[in-house]
Amino acid sequence: MDQSPSLAETQHQSVTFPGGLTLDCGRALATVTVAHRTYGTLNADKSNAILICQPLTCDQYVAEPNPETGKPGWWELMVGPGKPVDTDRYFVIGTNVLGGCMGTTGPRSPHEDGSGQPWGTAFPQVTIQDMVRAQKLLIDHLGITRLFAVVGGSMGGMQVLAWAALYPAHVFAAVPVATASYHSAQNIAFHEIGRQAIAADPYFYAGRYWSEGVRPERGLAVARMTAHITYVSEEALTRKFGRKLQNAEGLSALGDQFAVESYLQYQGSSFVQRFDANAYLTITRAMDLFDLAADHAGVLSAAFRGTKTRFLLVSFSSDWLFPTAQSRAIARALNHVAANVSFVEVQSDKGHDAFLLDEPDFHQTLRGFLAGCAEHAGLI
Amino acid sequence: MDQSPSLAETQHQSVTFPGGLTLDCGRALATVTVAHRTYGTLNADKSNAILICQPLTCDQYVAEPNPETGKPGWWELMVGPGKPVDTDRYFVIGTNVLGGCMGTTGPRSPHEDGSGQPWGTAFPQVTIQDMVRAQKLLIDHLGITRLFAVVGGSMGGMQVLAWAALYPAHVFAAVPVATASYHSAQNIAFHEIGRQAIAADPYFYAGRYWSEGVRPERGLAVARMTAHITYVSEEALTRKFGRKLQNAEGLSALGDQFAVESYLQYQGSSFVQRFDANAYLTITRAMDLFDLAADHAGVLSAAFRGTKTRFLLVSFSSDWLFPTAQSRAIARALNHVAANVSFVEVQSDKGHDAFLLDEPDFHQTLRGFLAGCAEHAGLI
Repeated sequence: MDQSPSLAETQHQSVTFPGGLTLDCGRALATVTVAHRTYGTLNADKSNAILICQPLTCDQYVAEPNPETGKPGWWELMVGPGKPVDTDRYFVIGTNVLGGCMGTTGPRSPHEDGSGQPWGTAFPQVTIQDMVRAQKLLIDHLGITRLFAVVGGSMGGMQVLAWAALYPAHVFAAVPVATASYHSAQNIAFHEIGRQAIAADPYFYAGRYWSEGVRPERGLAVARMTAHITYVSEEALTRKFGRKLQNAEGLSALGDQFAVESYLQYQGSSFVQRFDANAYLTITRAMDLFDLAADHAGVLSAAFRGTKTRFLLVSFSSDWLFPTAQSRAIARALNHVAANVSFVEVQSDKGHDAFLLDEPDFHQTLRGFLAGCAEHAGLI
Repeated sequence: MDQSPSLAETQHQSVTFPGGLTLDCGRALATVTVAHRTYGTLNADKSNAILICQPLTCDQYVAEPNPETGKPGWWELMVGPGKPVDTDRYFVIGTNVLGGCMGTTGPRSPHEDGSGQPWGTAFPQVTIQDMVRAQKLLIDHLGITRLFAVVGGSMGGMQVLAWAALYPAHVFAAVPVATASYHSAQNIAFHEIGRQAIAADPYFYAGRYWSEGVRPERGLAVARMTAHITYVSEEALTRKFGRKLQNAEGLSALGDQFAVESYLQYQGSSFVQRFDANAYLTITRAMDLFDLAADHAGVLSAAFRGTKTRFLLVSFSSDWLFPTAQSRAIARALNHVAANVSFVEVQSDKGHDAFLLDEPDFHQTLRGFLAGCAEHAGLI
């Protein structure tokens, strides 16, 4: 069915729910498949489960090599035996989001019309909340009544907030990291650049690139480049690359390369090997639509009224995509409803990407928070 | 010669210099044409001339309607009778930069090989300093020995700095606004997105789009969108557009439009009507190559040693593309050589674009600085 030339045909572990899912847009998916991976052991009373929510371009391969790229799991620094999210102690679940392209139902999945063709751009627009509802099907399927914790950064943090708002009784602890309760005008604008670049690629074919045996690789690469710049701080970019000329061939040609440019080109091109363009359009749009306060008559605190969930909010000082002020606004809303909330701004010069990198203060903070919550939850 | 379908065939006022120009890259242009416009009257001793240097996508039409777009001159708020740069008092010169597309020699000009074809990507890579050398030819031609002032923002500010460094005896006062002495890694990265988007457009034809009777409009639009986002502050973007849905049609389709997206699409598409893609590549690369300290063994102050020029540096508090710290670094370098320098950070929430907008504090500052300099220069 999928005729894309080089998207791997990896079989992903998944569960299919024949009851389907009604989406925020009003449409319903007749069936929903959720791809997932787990690490560690679920205890007898199923009280030690931690759900890790996926950032935009990550997936369910949190703590093991990614079968499509062969690279380490995207959060191996954080999740594993003895790590802050300790798989010797907790049962950790990673999923691929609804609308994604790694096994969960999305634009690459077969259309329900029986044509044998993928959904493509006909796939309904999903929301962050829809992603969470799909995860909830999986959690129910696993027999887990209450998640010990839901943890995620960036778009993963949006999912954490949606979990806490939609299913407060099912979340003991929530850790939204480097995130916001809504996507800002600037964030939307950066996404729009990426979407325009994809749509402008002649190989996009109005989203039916798979039927032509091609992919909009250049557009997708430009989209990835744009996003990548927003993920790093000016300091980090300068430290890594500065203004070093990649080829010291003088000024004679337009082809001269600053080191940062060839790095961005590499980042862009490795990304297109693993990510479906329609999935990128769908997921970025879901982020743009996220506005938790708007769902509660403009009052963010109303999303959390009566919550018993314990919150840890983390921001990074040099993150200009999801700046500390946005985490602080969430903390204020939680304080307004007398929620149990800790808020830490980690000093870092690594920008938004810091949550994925080796940031000892962040790792210590999360380890300690989970240990404290485990005590309160009666986890031995 | 130019077969582009809709680039206007406007005749621009210009002077051609048959002696040509040797460029920083080592190549020479056999002849150079500099397009320019002037406002006000040059006084008897030719001591009241102010050169306005062009930002990236502006041109020589500083204070009169642009003949190609019909829109007001790009700095009419600042330049004109009774304005801060008062054309009742000063003789104001606007030019199109070398490498541009509004009449000055650039990639759209006929190639020297006599083929009758444009240079296209074969046009030599120019630098900010080359742009200034071309302007110097025009200033000499006009019989002006010393410019009363050189004023410019953003890339225009880079030209001001290059003027002060290359021709200190010919510049009485210099006003670099919202600029830097080098282009940062982040700035280069944003430019690279635009260049990649242009190169990815199927209508780019490796830079020979004119021979196919087409233009890489979509790529150029993505480039413009990217630049535009960097020109405005998060606050300005939010104030103008917030998260308002352009069409309140719910979530049913990918086609939903946040207001900011349709604005950016409009900005992008109006830009492609007036700007040549190869010129955009050439000029953005010239900005990326700018590093005044590197030309002086890494010591910025060495660029200004012994200068008698009076400087006014202006930055804007919400400008994240050329932040205040970069103007401050220039001020420090000037102080280091005991130059006559004033430095003002204007409080504004309009971002980098503030220098083009109605910012009374900025306008008052420039008006006052010029009046003071006029007194010192003996201008009545």
